[in-house]
Amino acid sequence: MGRWEPDARERLQRAALALFTEQGFASTTVPQITARAGLTTRTFFRYFADKREVLFADEERLPALVRTLMATAPASAEPIEVIAYGLDALVTEVFEGRADYLRVRRRIIESDGGLQERELRKLASLSGEIREGFLQRGVDELTATLAADLAVSTFRAAVGRWLGDDDGRELAEHVHQALQLLGAIVCVPRRA
Amino acid sequence: MGRWEPDARERLQRAALALFTEQGFASTTVPQITARAGLTTRTFFRYFADKREVLFADEERLPALVRTLMATAPASAEPIEVIAYGLDALVTEVFEGRADYLRVRRRIIESDGGLQERELRKLASLSGEIREGFLQRGVDELTATLAADLAVSTFRAAVGRWLGDDDGRELAEHVHQALQLLGAIVCVPRRA
Repeated sequence: MGRWEPDARERLQRAALALFTEQGFASTTVPQITARAGLTTRTFFRYFADKREVLFADEERLPALVRTLMATAPASAEPIEVIAYGLDALVTEVFEGRADYLRVRRRIIESDGGLQERELRKLASLSGEIREGFLQRGVDELTATLAADLAVSTFRAAVGRWLGDDDGRELAEHVHQALQLLGAIVCVPRRA
Repeated sequence: MGRWEPDARERLQRAALALFTEQGFASTTVPQITARAGLTTRTFFRYFADKREVLFADEERLPALVRTLMATAPASAEPIEVIAYGLDALVTEVFEGRADYLRVRRRIIESDGGLQERELRKLASLSGEIREGFLQRGVDELTATLAADLAVSTFRAAVGRWLGDDDGRELAEHVHQALQLLGAIVCVPRRA
């Protein structure tokens, strides 16, 4: 009881995801999760504030990572280059190799209005973080706001395709394709 | 009591906004709103499902308007032209001349986490609506997703500047500036 379990966090996550999938997010309780994982609720609450956080805890490190990425991009980089640099790093450091987990997670989130709201809030605060990073780089406010939203939208669309398609293409490829398409959409000579 | 009041809706909105501002959104009750407006709670619930909807009811017509705009944009228009066309129409038909109201509304929404979530959900569903419109126009899925998010981000940033700045510039000008800046961000020749 309460002793250190080397893989407790992963076991709890695996048990929670299995139960959310089998019987729904709303119907799953923390005691059910810990019973399935063979651990105590006390151990659960050492890692997660509540059952919802099992789905969002991994993302807690994103804001700090984004701050680092924004600060370490070359000083001369244009905003769109900072975005490309940052998204490449996110792919490698956070997302690559986790498609199966993320696919299960996405299905659970789509099944619950409250989880969807939490996801939207997470994306909004990530955009705020990126905006702040651009401001720190000396970019004007409106550009910072637009570029931050662009980064989040592009990445989100790419991840959506990556998890939706089963054609074996890597996330990095989807990100590059989304960035290219962004150019194709925006960089069209406008007629009057 | 319950008889037809020609300006009941506007009176209720004005009373609600005044009370939300004076004493906070959370502390304001429907009976307080109706007392201030000199109307019955029965009349209130004829117009609004709850006090929160006072802040969001005007936006209920946005999805239908967006659908119409997406369908009436010239068939040959590129996605970025559809966006420019749609945002111009939104400015004229929904936003122009309402800066004072929208400024008060924004302050109230910023004061309450639940209202912020409702606003995020509204924006997400608006983006979904625009995406659907692009798909109907025969645009591919990834382009539709990206263009829809672009439209929402650009408009949101422009409205933010319009409400934040007191330099008397019209919203249409802010929208054009945001669209131009978008081009400046995205259409940069990328170095390796």
